[in-house]
Amino acid sequence: MNSTASPVSATGLPWAMQCTAFDAPQADTLRVQSEVLVVVSGQGRIEAVIARDDPRWETERARHAAAGQLRALPAGSYLLPGLVDVHVHAPQWPQMGKALDVPLEDWLQQNTFPLEARYGDAAFAESVYRPLVQQLLANGTTTAMYFGTLHEVGNRVLAEQCLRQGQRALVGRVAMDEPGQCPAFYRDASARQAVAETEAFIDAVAQLPGNSGGLVLPVITPRFIPSCTDELLAGLGALAQRTGAHVQTHCSESDWAHQHVLERTGTTDAHALHRFGLLTRRTVVAHANFLTHADVALMAEVGASVAHCPLSNFYFANSVFPARSGHAQQMGMGMGSDISGGYSPSMFDACRHAITASYALDEGVDPDLPSAQRGRHNARIDHVFALWLATAAGGKALDLPIGRIEAGQHFDAIVVDCHAPDSNVCIWPDSDSPADVLQKIIYNATRANVSQTWVQGALVHCRGTA
Amino acid sequence: MNSTASPVSATGLPWAMQCTAFDAPQADTLRVQSEVLVVVSGQGRIEAVIARDDPRWETERARHAAAGQLRALPAGSYLLPGLVDVHVHAPQWPQMGKALDVPLEDWLQQNTFPLEARYGDAAFAESVYRPLVQQLLANGTTTAMYFGTLHEVGNRVLAEQCLRQGQRALVGRVAMDEPGQCPAFYRDASARQAVAETEAFIDAVAQLPGNSGGLVLPVITPRFIPSCTDELLAGLGALAQRTGAHVQTHCSESDWAHQHVLERTGTTDAHALHRFGLLTRRTVVAHANFLTHADVALMAEVGASVAHCPLSNFYFANSVFPARSGHAQQMGMGMGSDISGGYSPSMFDACRHAITASYALDEGVDPDLPSAQRGRHNARIDHVFALWLATAAGGKALDLPIGRIEAGQHFDAIVVDCHAPDSNVCIWPDSDSPADVLQKIIYNATRANVSQTWVQGALVHCRGTA
Ligand SMILES: [Zn+2]
Ligand SMILES: [Zn+2]
Repeated sequence: MNSTASPVSATGLPWAMQCTAFDAPQADTLRVQSEVLVVVSGQGRIEAVIARDDPRWETERARHAAAGQLRALPAGSYLLPGLVDVHVHAPQWPQMGKALDVPLEDWLQQNTFPLEARYGDAAFAESVYRPLVQQLLANGTTTAMYFGTLHEVGNRVLAEQCLRQGQRALVGRVAMDEPGQCPAFYRDASARQAVAETEAFIDAVAQLPGNSGGLVLPVITPRFIPSCTDELLAGLGALAQRTGAHVQTHCSESDWAHQHVLERTGTTDAHALHRFGLLTRRTVVAHANFLTHADVALMAEVGASVAHCPLSNFYFANSVFPARSGHAQQMGMGMGSDISGGYSPSMFDACRHAITASYALDEGVDPDLPSAQRGRHNARIDHVFALWLATAAGGKALDLPIGRIEAGQHFDAIVVDCHAPDSNVCIWPDSDSPADVLQKIIYNATRANVSQTWVQGALVHCRGTA
Repeated sequence: MNSTASPVSATGLPWAMQCTAFDAPQADTLRVQSEVLVVVSGQGRIEAVIARDDPRWETERARHAAAGQLRALPAGSYLLPGLVDVHVHAPQWPQMGKALDVPLEDWLQQNTFPLEARYGDAAFAESVYRPLVQQLLANGTTTAMYFGTLHEVGNRVLAEQCLRQGQRALVGRVAMDEPGQCPAFYRDASARQAVAETEAFIDAVAQLPGNSGGLVLPVITPRFIPSCTDELLAGLGALAQRTGAHVQTHCSESDWAHQHVLERTGTTDAHALHRFGLLTRRTVVAHANFLTHADVALMAEVGASVAHCPLSNFYFANSVFPARSGHAQQMGMGMGSDISGGYSPSMFDACRHAITASYALDEGVDPDLPSAQRGRHNARIDHVFALWLATAAGGKALDLPIGRIEAGQHFDAIVVDCHAPDSNVCIWPDSDSPADVLQKIIYNATRANVSQTWVQGALVHCRGTA
């Protein structure tokens, strides 16, 4: 936690924030709560959101003010739910924004795997994971679902950094044992060992000092079907069934991956994962561009979710994930930065690219095609859907009470300051409605606008004091 | 000019900057000039770029240092050419990032035209244009080609703001007289009047106090063919031929516009513009997604250029502009933000979206199509091409000596600080080459990284002091 963290968050006493809050409790619903009083328990839960015209507003405000337990946001600042990034490759942080112009195979074998192989070194791991967590918090990411590496030590350092800095996190010990796909220098020695180490990591996370509240959770993490043997997938599936732990992997990302799994297993990624016991209510599969209609139905039935990573889709997935139609089939989803397949740590960038991707899918892109052959229509999402993806949808995908500003949720939130010195969010009070303000935030906010980041009622980042 | 502008830029004496400079003199050429001495004349031209191993480096450096005329950039800061935005609708600044979820017709008739109609009011114009110029400079845009409005007073205020704040600019008096396409409240009374006012504006800009150096130039600006009568287009074309002034308009942006012009004129936008005398070496046409092969050949032959606006393409153009193939046919081009059809004032955002758009075009976007029917291939551009588009290509499109860090060019440049407090550009000195640093800058720089903005040798913006 940052040294400037407010005493009101550290006392264990209830406190309140007076603010205008934006959230998107449903995919197409923007909620504006104007000048409400958000009452937060000493444990960091939202106890109530009291409307301005509720008779209790005055009395509760006065009571908290008298106790020194009131924060009021200044004009131009707004409360939003904390941003939930459901797909981050933590060890790839040093190469974010780099080597995006090389072919995927080179990217993996010459850049990514050699980098990931270094996290057996605790000092190196800390040199990466400390700034990673710090920077994601500065960008407003209050919850991250991380792929770690194969290394016990590196993954522990990552979990500890999240605890120390107060970021809610799900950390996965990556498992990959298929010799044909994984380099000798970065591969599990056997399926049995990978399963055993995954199980040990699940236990270790629960025991971490300071983690009694479960701020950090473990994740069963087969890299993706091509890099895992059947034995490994079956072993991890059994572990998922037995422990109820979260599961993450990649699924039907590219033409190559989709075809490879079809040929190897005789079925699609989603159905194969299900057969191995890896598709659960707490499973998040990244990308999933090439899901079939039956795959989507299966995902929806099981309650598994997709990590939509719009930015890396453009670079690595030969297509974009059809978020609108997946949602219409009631499949769960959240938003992922996919660092470093995606170049940006900002979930605001992810929001913008999710909208862009949906327009590209809807309208098509190639002007040489006749209009009727361009685009698939009814594929668009807007800024409200994007906000939902990056907040409430992510909370639901992770089966956690986060992503909305309402009673019963954790107080995981950010303060967006439209008047920040480097703000490109330009508000015209005479002509911008609250809904316009929110739209301008989604389209132009950067980390320079994130003035405060709160997790579980604690101020974990304050702009300018990192 | 900002109050913190360095005295060394105001003395009229030559001075020098010691720095590592990145530029892209050609579409696919990254130039890294490490620890060079950039010598700038008292008139703001680059006189020499002296390499570190050139014997003159030590003597010139010592000479400028002794005279108090040396600036050295700190570690983590790099010099880049100033960003050139060749398509900005200045009056739409207040609605940037807003109303992007409404149909184009509503966007024009209910949002855009009523807003643009207000710039007959000098006070309103100043309340918008002052922060517009300030914010673009803060984002590193050293040159902007602006669409203004129909109003003499508003356009003059815009030109004056550019002069006062030191931004190089091309300002256009918009002309639109077709009653079937333009609302009664925002339309030229006649073609004759529109031509006369355009001519008067060309003269007025040259006479503006402080504009003897030609920092601000006038632009002949028919909105687009559908909103102009033949008489207006012919009148403006004759004016372009007579004066040699720059020309800007929109061209073949959407299916609707492309078809409409075909039906009305019997030919494409580019050929119709050429027939009216509006396609010259100093013409920039925005979007141009639906140019035919013959159109591209005509543009290349004439030396006219396209303003590639990747962001607004996704929203309004039913497709993306094929930059790679246009360049292969030797057509000129530059980059446009297209505020407010595009939501971002940052040319770094434009760079990123130009890359994304090219990948979408190359790979296709719809996973339901077979791989062979998705994408058109050989359409990709990378971060170096994008940097070129946003700098040297824009300079060439505008027929101005800007966009490169080399002798003979104006010193229009920005300093990018990778260590800025809100930086998402994360450099790892042990593993990032200079080329990697540049790639990370293009992928993650925001205005928070733009620590200095220089135009014509003058420091016109300094981060944190706006
Ligand atoms: Zn991934
Ligand atoms: Zn335009």
